[in-house]
Amino acid sequence: MSEISTKPPSGMRDFLAADVVRRRHVLSVVQRVYESFGFVPLETPTIENLSTLLGKYGAEGDQLLYRILHRRDKLQRALQSGTATELELSDEGLRYDLTVPLARVVANYRDLPAYYKRYAIQPVWRADRPAKGRFREFYQCDVDITGTQSVLADAEVVGAVAGVLRGLGFTEFSIDVNHREMLRAFTAAAGIEPAQESLALIVLDKLDKIGRDGVMQELAQKGMPAGCGEALLGALEQARQPGALAAMAAGAGPFQGPAAALQALLAATADGPAGAHLRFDPTLARGLSYYTGPIFEVRCEGLAGSMGGGGRYDNLIGMFQKQKVPAVGFSLGLERVLLVMEERSMFPPLGIGPQLLLCLMADVPAAAAIRVASQLRAQGLRVEVFADDKAMGKQLAYANTLGAPFAAILGSAELAAGTVALKDLKTGEQLAVPVASVGVEVARRS
Amino acid sequence: MSEISTKPPSGMRDFLAADVVRRRHVLSVVQRVYESFGFVPLETPTIENLSTLLGKYGAEGDQLLYRILHRRDKLQRALQSGTATELELSDEGLRYDLTVPLARVVANYRDLPAYYKRYAIQPVWRADRPAKGRFREFYQCDVDITGTQSVLADAEVVGAVAGVLRGLGFTEFSIDVNHREMLRAFTAAAGIEPAQESLALIVLDKLDKIGRDGVMQELAQKGMPAGCGEALLGALEQARQPGALAAMAAGAGPFQGPAAALQALLAATADGPAGAHLRFDPTLARGLSYYTGPIFEVRCEGLAGSMGGGGRYDNLIGMFQKQKVPAVGFSLGLERVLLVMEERSMFPPLGIGPQLLLCLMADVPAAAAIRVASQLRAQGLRVEVFADDKAMGKQLAYANTLGAPFAAILGSAELAAGTVALKDLKTGEQLAVPVASVGVEVARRS
Repeated sequence: MSEISTKPPSGMRDFLAADVVRRRHVLSVVQRVYESFGFVPLETPTIENLSTLLGKYGAEGDQLLYRILHRRDKLQRALQSGTATELELSDEGLRYDLTVPLARVVANYRDLPAYYKRYAIQPVWRADRPAKGRFREFYQCDVDITGTQSVLADAEVVGAVAGVLRGLGFTEFSIDVNHREMLRAFTAAAGIEPAQESLALIVLDKLDKIGRDGVMQELAQKGMPAGCGEALLGALEQARQPGALAAMAAGAGPFQGPAAALQALLAATADGPAGAHLRFDPTLARGLSYYTGPIFEVRCEGLAGSMGGGGRYDNLIGMFQKQKVPAVGFSLGLERVLLVMEERSMFPPLGIGPQLLLCLMADVPAAAAIRVASQLRAQGLRVEVFADDKAMGKQLAYANTLGAPFAAILGSAELAAGTVALKDLKTGEQLAVPVASVGVEVARRS
Repeated sequence: MSEISTKPPSGMRDFLAADVVRRRHVLSVVQRVYESFGFVPLETPTIENLSTLLGKYGAEGDQLLYRILHRRDKLQRALQSGTATELELSDEGLRYDLTVPLARVVANYRDLPAYYKRYAIQPVWRADRPAKGRFREFYQCDVDITGTQSVLADAEVVGAVAGVLRGLGFTEFSIDVNHREMLRAFTAAAGIEPAQESLALIVLDKLDKIGRDGVMQELAQKGMPAGCGEALLGALEQARQPGALAAMAAGAGPFQGPAAALQALLAATADGPAGAHLRFDPTLARGLSYYTGPIFEVRCEGLAGSMGGGGRYDNLIGMFQKQKVPAVGFSLGLERVLLVMEERSMFPPLGIGPQLLLCLMADVPAAAAIRVASQLRAQGLRVEVFADDKAMGKQLAYANTLGAPFAAILGSAELAAGTVALKDLKTGEQLAVPVASVGVEVARRS
């Protein structure tokens, strides 16, 4: 016998029945709410050409891509030189997020609606170091609207995400908003060169993790001007004060435009599901470089990190076609949502597994067992048939192991009478019930 | 601007909204029926260790595996020698079927039920040559029962698959059954050596494609004894005659056991959903070598090839652990099922996309539009808000483009009155409806 490991690979998980049912519960709410906002589903392949993926996620992202090894002749040719490189060994990789495939799809199918509102619920893969709550295969739940720069589109994606969280029972969460152009104005005002802006934002994005001092140190280490960290953080703190956003929006200079855009977004969402949750956070910086306008992040009291984020990216689709197409989107991370819901017992009762185990006396022919099971299933019941020839006590004990709330005993006497002996495993009560009435009786007792 | 291809990779597909909705319709029936049989869901990771996958699908299967290229240090080390092989460049691959991951799971989680009845609905990947109806990423819908050799288990997996097909509206399909031991007895009787039995069955499996003469030629080419093909095919033809199975079951020798087992299966399923569809076909041979008992294949009038298949495999799980665990399963191929359903227009009407486009006069503030949209969504409607500032005619034309059956016009007059101008886009009729009554009015007209 073999020494094959039976564990899933590092960072990957098996989902047994209870896990699957909980995940489906969340995804069904996501789907229902996203569809109520008029989004339509899209599913893209697991495998994309590397030419689609590379250069969209920054150097670090490229490192985390799962790449598919060439096969057969192509592999042999690549290896023959003896100096094959990563790029010569592979031209396909696994989906890394849902946004880049969307951009490819928008560029590929020219008959999509002018305002393409799509949602996607699919796994993505990143060869990151596994940690608590961080996996190498995980689901994202995205909504995006392409084809418009309207604040209504920004408001709708934010509203859809808020609607999902409220639909799942979340009450205490914030959707932090900021604006890429405002971050640009703040970094410039702090004396950071435009060429270093992206790097500075990647550092600022770590504020929660490494704190004010950490950000200042790291900015200095990266060769930014002395004192720029203090200037930047000080200005951002001031911008967080009540009234500061309105003052910027009413003012002039590079802060006016983005401040007014955020004011418009806050106003547009005021009476929708996101209204009570939106919060201007001038320190919010998203790591990805493709954002061009408002950016978002969902946070939940007591959870380190975010449950999702997004923003406006008006230039990404233009990387796949001649014409620029504006777009805005929001991505919810299923795993973080599940983590919080599990910690806080936010799941409703979920039906898992069979409701009834059909237990068979030795004198029942297989055909009769299958026939009665079919009759019970036609009543909408989830029914398992005990397959082996075992003592009735063992069969009933197995029903308990399964967590089935009911068992039904079938013997030749019951067959002749057209009944089963229905046993309520919670109360221990047992009674003869006509086969045709079992569904009603189970429903009455459930 | 770039020259990036915007197509999915070869053999892969994008599913736009109508595709996703049709796929979901089928999968919802699969899930409902499988659960009614007491099966519980399992989801395993996309990526498995190659040690799990290799050697389970035969040499040809190993060739079709998608392998993940090593990264960073591991890749550098592998390449340094200058003579790296496929196995040194990769130790992970993509899921190739749902059965081997199940075997790994059964070996890994020792607290699973003694009779583990699981279903799985997941994509698998095979680097096969793409062709009509053959893709490199495709979904399988599997049911399996582990832990018992009972004919009831065989009958249940066959019944579940028949139940799914009937639930989808299929009436004319057959579930062909045969037995691995009977094939062994027939090949032996035809003079084929035990060592060549598997090879002979792979050839026999092509009978539909290459015909009698093709099978006989190929057996001869593979070095089988002269005349063995004719003997084998002749005997199989005889076994197909009415009464032949019963005669073998009543007889003696190596045919008796498997014939009696198939007789028992036919009897057990007689009054269940599979009853009318089961058909003994002594020429049925499944390519995979791990089957040990009954084997199945679903065929549908007018479809070349099968919609799925399965069988009993009592030794596979033992490849992952010391203890043997018997098992039986059946796999439905989603893509073939969809192909037939599309060709035969078997789909019910499926709601795709928004039911109502909320069209906005220029005098409506964004906040009011979002508020009214929220009120409509709370009534269960799927509502899209037109985001750009365009003439009303263009907005209504867009509703038609989308295929939305209704539009609702909102201006300051409607806002003041608490109404919308609801337009039925099928009839062209337009009437003022209180916002709170739109859901009822749409339902009445749908």
